[in-house]
Amino acid sequence: MSDGTRHANSRPQGSRIDPYFDQYAERARGMVASEIRALFAVTARPEIVSLAGGSPYVTALPLDVVGDMVGRLVADRGSVALQYCTAQGDSGLREKICEVMSLEGIRAHPDDVVVTVGSQQALDLITRIFVDPGEVVLAEAPSYVGALSSFAAYQADVVHVAMDDDGLIPEALEEAIARLTAAGRRIKFLYTVPNYQNPAGVTLAAERRPRILGICQAAGLLIIEDNPYGLLGFDGEPMRSLRADDPDGVVYLGTFSKTFAPGVRVGWASAPPAIRDKLVLAAESAVLCHSSFSQLAVGEYLATQPWQEQVKDFRELYRRRRDAMLEALAAELPDGCRWTTPAGGFYVWLQLPEGIDSKAMLPRAVSSRVAYVPGTGFYADGGGTDHLRLSYCFPLPERIREGVRRLASVIEAEIDLCATFGAMPPHGRVGPETPGPGDL
Amino acid sequence: MSDGTRHANSRPQGSRIDPYFDQYAERARGMVASEIRALFAVTARPEIVSLAGGSPYVTALPLDVVGDMVGRLVADRGSVALQYCTAQGDSGLREKICEVMSLEGIRAHPDDVVVTVGSQQALDLITRIFVDPGEVVLAEAPSYVGALSSFAAYQADVVHVAMDDDGLIPEALEEAIARLTAAGRRIKFLYTVPNYQNPAGVTLAAERRPRILGICQAAGLLIIEDNPYGLLGFDGEPMRSLRADDPDGVVYLGTFSKTFAPGVRVGWASAPPAIRDKLVLAAESAVLCHSSFSQLAVGEYLATQPWQEQVKDFRELYRRRRDAMLEALAAELPDGCRWTTPAGGFYVWLQLPEGIDSKAMLPRAVSSRVAYVPGTGFYADGGGTDHLRLSYCFPLPERIREGVRRLASVIEAEIDLCATFGAMPPHGRVGPETPGPGDL
Repeated sequence: MSDGTRHANSRPQGSRIDPYFDQYAERARGMVASEIRALFAVTARPEIVSLAGGSPYVTALPLDVVGDMVGRLVADRGSVALQYCTAQGDSGLREKICEVMSLEGIRAHPDDVVVTVGSQQALDLITRIFVDPGEVVLAEAPSYVGALSSFAAYQADVVHVAMDDDGLIPEALEEAIARLTAAGRRIKFLYTVPNYQNPAGVTLAAERRPRILGICQAAGLLIIEDNPYGLLGFDGEPMRSLRADDPDGVVYLGTFSKTFAPGVRVGWASAPPAIRDKLVLAAESAVLCHSSFSQLAVGEYLATQPWQEQVKDFRELYRRRRDAMLEALAAELPDGCRWTTPAGGFYVWLQLPEGIDSKAMLPRAVSSRVAYVPGTGFYADGGGTDHLRLSYCFPLPERIREGVRRLASVIEAEIDLCATFGAMPPHGRVGPETPGPGDL
Repeated sequence: MSDGTRHANSRPQGSRIDPYFDQYAERARGMVASEIRALFAVTARPEIVSLAGGSPYVTALPLDVVGDMVGRLVADRGSVALQYCTAQGDSGLREKICEVMSLEGIRAHPDDVVVTVGSQQALDLITRIFVDPGEVVLAEAPSYVGALSSFAAYQADVVHVAMDDDGLIPEALEEAIARLTAAGRRIKFLYTVPNYQNPAGVTLAAERRPRILGICQAAGLLIIEDNPYGLLGFDGEPMRSLRADDPDGVVYLGTFSKTFAPGVRVGWASAPPAIRDKLVLAAESAVLCHSSFSQLAVGEYLATQPWQEQVKDFRELYRRRRDAMLEALAAELPDGCRWTTPAGGFYVWLQLPEGIDSKAMLPRAVSSRVAYVPGTGFYADGGGTDHLRLSYCFPLPERIREGVRRLASVIEAEIDLCATFGAMPPHGRVGPETPGPGDL
């Protein structure tokens, strides 16, 4: 057995392409690269207007000032910034995070906060500690692709709950809970992006918030409130957080990816104490601890820079791009298209005329030098074939207009095709595709 | 159901301390804070000599130079350094990683490499993609506490394989594989730290390496080669990596935590293509992508700074501390103690005289102002009660000597107690404790 030679049949034999094919865990079988991923690789080419990616416009930051700040941080406090940290995260940063959350009505203590590698890691850890295979997670229809990917990784059964222009529909939530409970299913939490939702661009109306909280309280259902865009509203004050009114029943997820920079990967969860403890242990097991270098850089940025002024600048910048997109959509798109009107955040959710499949259309759109994300990525159940997500966060307004013009031509050609040959059968694959950073 | 009031019995009722107690996933039930964690919190106090933690001595880095470098990086390339990255990691950094691995005989392509949040994340992702609950992972006895924590998080059944002063014993590995296979158990991989092992401080002898590879090839068993300390050997050239001689059968894990700085949390896996693909998808689902800020900082450090000279300086610094510890152990410890002689890395593994329990002794050691890590943390099966780990990486040599003097007094007092009252019953808890950064 140990003669050191390799036996022809000694390696796992799964397949010629993947000799480990039959060795993976059950949970890994669903990990398959998106069929649209190869297409997205080309969208980085400058001739293509990408309305697909969710990259914030970090070039708007004062990079020389941030560079100076980070340089001094390492020179002066490098023995801390370059060392291990606790798994819960730097205490100075957690204090600052509480100040940030206070803008949305949350009264938190730094002990309530766990710093995570972006809010994506918070999603991963929450699912890890709560969900056994086959258990139910409730999520909006559509829902954030990265969250669906985390839920899939732990073999959750995602059940979508309908939204309208005022966000999650309370009656639909009640109905889903009643139906699943009657069927003996175990629901672990409701996952919601209440503000400027990704991908739908809609916001949970203020008057619905106490109703959603009440329904979940009555059902004993934990809420995961994911709020990356809350401070990027275009009108008035930030919406009041769900966690502000039910700290025992809501885990709040935040991030500096949109208010500062995604490249530092600093997000957080603010949670009830028992859940916080589990999250810290799970984080330790997953990554030992977050980067002190990133955490101290964010803490220093919040402490020494006019970060709220910078957020205002971001808001104005994104508002102008949203306006450019909405104007172009109204001017260019053919009849039969409908889209949402986001009051903040990065995204417009577009419904195509009947019979047009957004995924089947994508290769033709890319040929016409415009890219978007097909709607199916935002559903765990095969929904979304007639929808697509457009983002206005990264391209300049004139590029957004040009992109929408190109998209309009593609849709018109698709309508002609459809009129000539009939509707396409809906595209095959069901379930969320693992997102690339271009699909954020 | 949705009247908005809270019903007395509507929340999960698990316990008064944790209302979510009965809501967690099966895998989370084992996530319990280490009972020694509270004790470790006090070891940060300056009057205590901590021989417990595994923090590298980052103060030896030229912090002003690194600060300048990082500042310029953000000022000049901030639009990349502060933006999202691909889940596989920055391609420039992956090229540099291949150069680093070439020092240990590995011929790799940047496509083979996945950048991870420290090598801890690589451990988490490897276990995530391979291990279903109840499946076997083979690991050295003792083994790295962070790895045991990852294995436990996915409910692996860890089976330890004996080591001696030349590392993993080939015959013991063969025997374990044969025994488990005969019992119908599914073994997913062998996890090994071949160089200057944490916690044992021993190194897999060169002549054993082809035998270990041969045994695993014959059994079709994947090897996870975790090599954080490979470039920190005190004598001669780095050992040849296992992956250098079997790139299809070995996943190599590396990190910059010990050669540069743990605060950037940059590690990596170098893996066969099919496994690499799964790791990228798993990483995306876990954290979307690693920090560009950290990755570019490491890439810049490798490209512009004399990093190999710095590693030489680290080696000399750690060698002097190792010598201080070994001399003090020989001079101070009572008869009946045995310890390993590390040829690199950070750790000495100490066996106490018969009947002395290292965990029961710890509170008395802390009272005597010295700390260590009890041996049980490095076993999944309750082993290690008579062992402890001492690290020499962080304290200055005179502090190491003082710490060993204090430890010697504690052990002597323990021997007296034992002679008077008989041996203590072995300490209760079985299985690995989730590590704190102090237990690295």
